[in-house]
Amino acid sequence: MNLISQSLKWTDEGFFILDQRALPEEVRWLPIHNPGEMIRAIQELAIRGAPLISVGAVFALYAYAESGASADEIRTAAEQLRASRPTAVNLMHAMDRVVLNQASEKLTASHLRELAAEIFHEDVELCRRIGENGFTLMPESGSVLTHCNTGGLGTVGIGTALGVISTAHKNGRKVHVYVDETRPLLQGARLTTWELRQGGVPATLICDNMAGALMQRGKIQCVIVGADRIAMNGDFANKTGTYSVAVLARHHNIPFYVAAPVTTLDGDCSDGSQIPIEERSPAEVRGAAFGRGKDISWSPQDMPVFNPAFDVTPGELVTSFVLDTGLYSRTDVQAGRLAGAFESLRAKINRRVPGHA
Amino acid sequence: MNLISQSLKWTDEGFFILDQRALPEEVRWLPIHNPGEMIRAIQELAIRGAPLISVGAVFALYAYAESGASADEIRTAAEQLRASRPTAVNLMHAMDRVVLNQASEKLTASHLRELAAEIFHEDVELCRRIGENGFTLMPESGSVLTHCNTGGLGTVGIGTALGVISTAHKNGRKVHVYVDETRPLLQGARLTTWELRQGGVPATLICDNMAGALMQRGKIQCVIVGADRIAMNGDFANKTGTYSVAVLARHHNIPFYVAAPVTTLDGDCSDGSQIPIEERSPAEVRGAAFGRGKDISWSPQDMPVFNPAFDVTPGELVTSFVLDTGLYSRTDVQAGRLAGAFESLRAKINRRVPGHA
Repeated sequence: MNLISQSLKWTDEGFFILDQRALPEEVRWLPIHNPGEMIRAIQELAIRGAPLISVGAVFALYAYAESGASADEIRTAAEQLRASRPTAVNLMHAMDRVVLNQASEKLTASHLRELAAEIFHEDVELCRRIGENGFTLMPESGSVLTHCNTGGLGTVGIGTALGVISTAHKNGRKVHVYVDETRPLLQGARLTTWELRQGGVPATLICDNMAGALMQRGKIQCVIVGADRIAMNGDFANKTGTYSVAVLARHHNIPFYVAAPVTTLDGDCSDGSQIPIEERSPAEVRGAAFGRGKDISWSPQDMPVFNPAFDVTPGELVTSFVLDTGLYSRTDVQAGRLAGAFESLRAKINRRVPGHA
Repeated sequence: MNLISQSLKWTDEGFFILDQRALPEEVRWLPIHNPGEMIRAIQELAIRGAPLISVGAVFALYAYAESGASADEIRTAAEQLRASRPTAVNLMHAMDRVVLNQASEKLTASHLRELAAEIFHEDVELCRRIGENGFTLMPESGSVLTHCNTGGLGTVGIGTALGVISTAHKNGRKVHVYVDETRPLLQGARLTTWELRQGGVPATLICDNMAGALMQRGKIQCVIVGADRIAMNGDFANKTGTYSVAVLARHHNIPFYVAAPVTTLDGDCSDGSQIPIEERSPAEVRGAAFGRGKDISWSPQDMPVFNPAFDVTPGELVTSFVLDTGLYSRTDVQAGRLAGAFESLRAKINRRVPGHA
């Protein structure tokens, strides 16, 4: 099996993830041998992005099966992976689909290899379709604001929100990107900047608190962000700070778009109040926590901190959702069309893999 | 002359400023011998806060006169100091008042010593009155959000917005403070946290982009910030990110207060479009720039950056101004009462010091 993306790879040498803590200084590949290493990589954000961690988790389970893990061990590992990040739903869907909704006799290396390849290629295709569906929403010539990282580093394809932007760029639109640095973990400053420069898309880095002043000056034509979980009424969880950007966009009458694959929909979640929000270490806010012994602190050491990794934006602030299945306006969402889009995924999650016995 | 505050001191050993780049790790006093050293300290933010830099600049001119500078040299130095930070107006008023509107024969060490002491004691008193006028606006029991640093480190008194909070605390109100870290220079994370802990006021540090989510959860009862320049229609410049907070407060129907001394009013500025905004080095946004060889960078080295040090918030988003001369509602501002408050200051700026000849 040879599956290679910008963000992870399975080759004859094994399974590797791009260590995103090392960017932009260094492109370093981290070998993953088992689910325990993947859980640690997820929690330390060596791998991140709601679509990507679901693909990576499936790969880790396949590696585990190859090394001789039993069906019970694989099931337990899938449950632990499923719980490793409480907000993003893609990982939960993937674990249900690949392991937890499967009969134990299907939890073999050959089945998991098949499903890993299926989910890898599917994510590439979902991203491509999101880009195609969304790029005409981008200005012919103007600036777009984005938050966090939603590109090839958050998926195995071209990304979600950043994929829409890069598709617009490839289709000749003169799009300039303002990149929110995205405190505390600085995914915008470290990762989105790096990706945009690699892709040759003009971009300017700002601190999160400067977005309002740019909108006030008429410098932002639209906002596009990703999502970690979308409820059926259009409320969605995304990286902390997204809600503030959505309110600012509404105040300035600027279109606010959310780009995501159907794997980000949660058909069992009717509204945002049901989305659990992960709180992370105070050290991330007291300074800059990059892991790998490179953490620094600049506030008083024992300073109390509030550090939610995500926030929830009400659907009423979203102009349109850009999914692989199409565009969904506020009216579409109110008519229940996100629930319709979710049904094809639900069928996959509940599908038993045909036996090879 | 013995004038000592938390932020600067004039003693028999000379003139010293507290080096705010070293906080909270270290309390270090930096000697200032002349206006050139003060300009550098202002530009590197070793000293900061609109009221404080105006007091510090007057002290530096007095030190210069003591060392034998001529009237012409003092005048030139005052002009250079006046231009060292283009947004805050307090410094400009102080330079006009102490030097530029004075006849050359008055630019002596003894006159400058008199004015330095006058302006020092005046700032202490302005802060005290702001605290008294504003503290009843704070919740009896609840949380206040603030941005940047507006305490004893930004004045020679108890501060402006933070002085209102500490006065409420001293008057028995159970006020908890959410502190915006205030990227890029982290005055909230480094300085406001330090001051609040010294004063025993309960506080929690957040990233700037989390303020909206706190408001959404009903955790913020009011917002109070300082100002670097207030136009006569109520538009005001303050630390970058203030405008976003004001929009968020309006969206959530949360009162938004601005605390400042009359020295922050600009009677010649009718609205915010006339306030120049200082843009600072890209290095501050590409990482964290603390000076003293401790800068770090985490984004691509040549990444383009937008780095305005201040933004302008429209007066219509301000519930009340808390000045030393009283409270000014939106209606008061529309009735021109800020212009009235400015007149006493204008008289001082244009007053010639009585001759000692």
